[in-house]
Amino acid sequence: MPSEKEQREENSISDPYLFLAYDHGLGRGPEDFEEYPQGADPAYVIDLAHEGKFSAIALEPGLAWLYRDEIQEKNVPLLVKVNGRTNFSQNSFLAPQLCTVEYAVGTLNATALGAVVFLGDSDEARMLRDLGHIVETATQYQLPVVGWMYTLEDYKKGGPGDPRRMAYAARVGAELGCDIVKVHWTGDAESFSWVCEAAGKTKVVVAGGIKTNTPEEFLGIMKEARDAGAAGVAVGRNIWQVSREEALETARQLRKLFPEK
Amino acid sequence: MPSEKEQREENSISDPYLFLAYDHGLGRGPEDFEEYPQGADPAYVIDLAHEGKFSAIALEPGLAWLYRDEIQEKNVPLLVKVNGRTNFSQNSFLAPQLCTVEYAVGTLNATALGAVVFLGDSDEARMLRDLGHIVETATQYQLPVVGWMYTLEDYKKGGPGDPRRMAYAARVGAELGCDIVKVHWTGDAESFSWVCEAAGKTKVVVAGGIKTNTPEEFLGIMKEARDAGAAGVAVGRNIWQVSREEALETARQLRKLFPEK
Amino acid sequence: MPSEKEQREENSISDPYLFLAYDHGLGRGPEDFEEYPQGADPAYVIDLAHEGKFSAIALEPGLAWLYRDEIQEKNVPLLVKVNGRTNFSQNSFLAPQLCTVEYAVGTLNATALGAVVFLGDSDEARMLRDLGHIVETATQYQLPVVGWMYTLEDYKKGGPGDPRRMAYAARVGAELGCDIVKVHWTGDAESFSWVCEAAGKTKVVVAGGIKTNTPEEFLGIMKEARDAGAAGVAVGRNIWQVSREEALETARQLRKLFPEK
Amino acid sequence: MPSEKEQREENSISDPYLFLAYDHGLGRGPEDFEEYPQGADPAYVIDLAHEGKFSAIALEPGLAWLYRDEIQEKNVPLLVKVNGRTNFSQNSFLAPQLCTVEYAVGTLNATALGAVVFLGDSDEARMLRDLGHIVETATQYQLPVVGWMYTLEDYKKGGPGDPRRMAYAARVGAELGCDIVKVHWTGDAESFSWVCEAAGKTKVVVAGGIKTNTPEEFLGIMKEARDAGAAGVAVGRNIWQVSREEALETARQLRKLFPEK
Amino acid sequence: MPSEKEQREENSISDPYLFLAYDHGLGRGPEDFEEYPQGADPAYVIDLAHEGKFSAIALEPGLAWLYRDEIQEKNVPLLVKVNGRTNFSQNSFLAPQLCTVEYAVGTLNATALGAVVFLGDSDEARMLRDLGHIVETATQYQLPVVGWMYTLEDYKKGGPGDPRRMAYAARVGAELGCDIVKVHWTGDAESFSWVCEAAGKTKVVVAGGIKTNTPEEFLGIMKEARDAGAAGVAVGRNIWQVSREEALETARQLRKLFPEK
Repeated sequence: MPSEKEQREENSISDPYLFLAYDHGLGRGPEDFEEYPQGADPAYVIDLAHEGKFSAIALEPGLAWLYRDEIQEKNVPLLVKVNGRTNFSQNSFLAPQLCTVEYAVGTLNATALGAVVFLGDSDEARMLRDLGHIVETATQYQLPVVGWMYTLEDYKKGGPGDPRRMAYAARVGAELGCDIVKVHWTGDAESFSWVCEAAGKTKVVVAGGIKTNTPEEFLGIMKEARDAGAAGVAVGRNIWQVSREEALETARQLRKLFPEK
Repeated sequence: MPSEKEQREENSISDPYLFLAYDHGLGRGPEDFEEYPQGADPAYVIDLAHEGKFSAIALEPGLAWLYRDEIQEKNVPLLVKVNGRTNFSQNSFLAPQLCTVEYAVGTLNATALGAVVFLGDSDEARMLRDLGHIVETATQYQLPVVGWMYTLEDYKKGGPGDPRRMAYAARVGAELGCDIVKVHWTGDAESFSWVCEAAGKTKVVVAGGIKTNTPEEFLGIMKEARDAGAAGVAVGRNIWQVSREEALETARQLRKLFPEK
Repeated sequence: MPSEKEQREENSISDPYLFLAYDHGLGRGPEDFEEYPQGADPAYVIDLAHEGKFSAIALEPGLAWLYRDEIQEKNVPLLVKVNGRTNFSQNSFLAPQLCTVEYAVGTLNATALGAVVFLGDSDEARMLRDLGHIVETATQYQLPVVGWMYTLEDYKKGGPGDPRRMAYAARVGAELGCDIVKVHWTGDAESFSWVCEAAGKTKVVVAGGIKTNTPEEFLGIMKEARDAGAAGVAVGRNIWQVSREEALETARQLRKLFPEK
Repeated sequence: MPSEKEQREENSISDPYLFLAYDHGLGRGPEDFEEYPQGADPAYVIDLAHEGKFSAIALEPGLAWLYRDEIQEKNVPLLVKVNGRTNFSQNSFLAPQLCTVEYAVGTLNATALGAVVFLGDSDEARMLRDLGHIVETATQYQLPVVGWMYTLEDYKKGGPGDPRRMAYAARVGAELGCDIVKVHWTGDAESFSWVCEAAGKTKVVVAGGIKTNTPEEFLGIMKEARDAGAAGVAVGRNIWQVSREEALETARQLRKLFPEK
Repeated sequence: MPSEKEQREENSISDPYLFLAYDHGLGRGPEDFEEYPQGADPAYVIDLAHEGKFSAIALEPGLAWLYRDEIQEKNVPLLVKVNGRTNFSQNSFLAPQLCTVEYAVGTLNATALGAVVFLGDSDEARMLRDLGHIVETATQYQLPVVGWMYTLEDYKKGGPGDPRRMAYAARVGAELGCDIVKVHWTGDAESFSWVCEAAGKTKVVVAGGIKTNTPEEFLGIMKEARDAGAAGVAVGRNIWQVSREEALETARQLRKLFPEK
């Protein structure tokens, strides 16, 4: 058995980042699981994170708590997304903070922290204030913070994101102190490289987005993003909305695109 | 006399769950008691919880405080619903938190905690924030949390609930870390089984809802819900809006449907 | 000299309750004192509370502080109403909390605590949250809490209150943990007895309301209320809007209606 | 050198009150200083407070901090107005609290505390809540609190104030626990004496208001106010909008009107 | 190696002030960096601050954290701007606080603190409340506070600022306790000298504003401002939107205009 310190070090994440995003149950609902119902089972997806050798699985605090045994057993690094919203309120994109950083670290044993900001929403200021506080607290624990930097307009249409807005969104994450930001793909490598440059030291991971027609299409975009400077990818639906074999193959291809340094 | 620890263990609840819901005095008013006035008396209903061998009685913190002697005397496990709203404000479904978790546990001697969220309300974010905090605190006490996961639209029409919305509501409870969620019946077993699947490890209890014409009709629905995967039922009006004999008979039938494991 | 403990016990209040309400200076303004200006003087009214042997005088925290010497000298039990609003804002009935329970107990030496809730106001949730917190804190000090349970519609027309709404208002007070609620008279004994029944263990005192034409008229209503189950009365204008003799005579009659047990 | 305790006692204020109001730079802007620019200099006005033997100078916390040396050197008693608003927002009269009572006492060395409430504003409840908290905290330090009790309607037209509203405003200050309230002059002695009576033990100081045509006119009003029961005056523009000689002469006349007891 | 105390003293700032403003990535976005992309790199701009011998570089807390090594290595005094907003919400100018003063001082090693207030915004009161708290806390650490005192109307048109509004804005900063305020240039020396006079002891630095056509034009305005009483300048775009040589030449000229005392 590794010591707590060894365990923590073993679980610490580093560039490049392959995040398995699994916060859709809160943000979009089980509708996302209808076509491939096994994706509704957190235990199944935690296992995919393990087998697919993802850098971390991104979970809302509730699932992280209820599935703590599975996470620990598979030794999957955990990214706790400490805020979130549902899709019931079409008029509000305020994502309330759902747990404290202290809880995510001390009780849930998080390896990294995440939070979403919907830029352009009437409650943007509240989310920025929360994110500032999350970063401030996270620095005490030396844990990286991942900012889901979404712009309202682009989020609503489901991406790709407007290049200037994506660059701005990434920069906001840097100005707030995020180690990593997740933004939408801009549609082409040139504009995305400006996004990465605008983020300075902050690493940019590209949102895996909606399920593409073929894995090849998806991987083609990821390759473009990598060449433009992306430090990784946060992928969800292209993993748990396909068969286990396809999912693990996609994960394998992503690891080839973003090999460990 | 059992020790405090023994008492707590004795009162701890486990699947299946038969909750006697009695928070209607706040949420709907004494109108619910007019036809059968004895139901207005918390002491009477606490006794029903005892005689009917319910897993717990769900009370707002005020009644739990004022009737602490009766609850202790009958040794009825207590589910404190820590938030709630009245029906005076038709335009707002914000259910403010009415006591702290510390108070529910330390002073009221709660066996479980409950909280309602009205999904789709303009104050949904506030209720989710509160629920997140309740779960975070409850984990320190190792107490289960029951989420009354209501969708505004379905609540207003009094159920049955739209299947997709019920699945989403149940999932939100899981993403927030509820051990148990209470949702409306969807109208058929097939759609309700998806609700239960979408909730993952989180147990689903079906809302007893409005008083049916006959106990048989009510029990028929409960049987369907059980077969679809429900882990129990939260029943109120079908217990304290009928005679004591009927109430205890219904409780007995429910225990048969959901036998102790 | 009695010890602090003896003093506290001496001042503790019990059923029946004759409260001298004197929070009108905040809620309605000195307009209420114009016809009988002596009523504007808190010292005079504190003396009436003493001479009239009222269970307690209800004061906002500021007067309780400024007149602490008079209150102590006359040994008048003190009910601190910890929230309140003015009548300057016709569109808002939010009654902000004006002092903490700790201050009311520790500094003002309160025997009981009070708070108003305007049910149906757009800020109702905030007032319920505050009341919940007040009750939670008050239980630590074993002090009774009196809920001024007003419904917006009935308060605006000045009473009498709609029977169903009054029953609901009283029940809300019970669900929140008030030991005593103050509600408007419903107009007849039958409906008022349902109000008292709906409140369970929570005692109901009837609001003395506007000054009646004659003391007899007022006392007649109080007698009806008592017979319907009221545990007392909160009277203001019928005391300090009349001569000292009339006031003390009314108090004497009230004590006869609600004799000490 | 006097000890801290002696210093505090030396600086303690008592009836009658001659306050030099100098919070206009925040509430109205330097426009007030244009005609007589020396009035823009806090050091000059602090000196006037000293030479004019005012009971205290009323300052916002920022000036009290930046000019702490001048205040200490001249040994001028300090009334820290702990909240305030600017005139940039014509639609909002919310005066946010700008420092804590602890800071005003411990760091700024305040002799008295002040706060404004705009009665009738949509944020009135917030200001009352703040004032309640200020009074509660101030009682721990045994410092007097001065309430700037303004009614929105009368403030906007610049006074004189409607007699009934002024009486209500003064009473609100008393109900909140202010030792002193500052209200607008009502226009005649009879109505103002009712204002003073309605305030009970709370002392009433009259707002010096806009610069009158002649000092005589101003002093005439002050004399009327005194005869009606005012315990003093809070004067600003009639002091620092005139020459130093006129200012000190006005101060001398005010001391004659309100001689030390 | 200097001790922490020596380091702090070495880094302490004094009149005159040459601030290198670099908070545009949050407030305006990377659009500002498009023409001269090197300006997007905080490391580059930190180096400019060092080479240009600026009094301090103004950074949002996130960049101050991520570039702490570069800041320390170059020994650049750090002004942490503890609040800020993005330009995504055209309707709201609420700049939420993004970190605590304690964090800015203890973790980020700030030499000075800054905060923006948008006077005239519907959330002005919230920003004033925050600024008051920032000043109160900063006095405990004896750190200077710089107020970005912007008036909504003038900010939106990009300056120059209306003279009366600028004087008012500067005064508000003084009333709140800012050691230094940053305001827009008024267009002429006479009106700007009134701005400086209205600020009392509070030092006024002029906002460098938009990039002028030539450095001469910019320096000409700065000279006027200095002669009118400005204690320095906060310049951004005229430094990192030009070549390195131009930037350092501008810095050199500014040091000549505002020589160390």
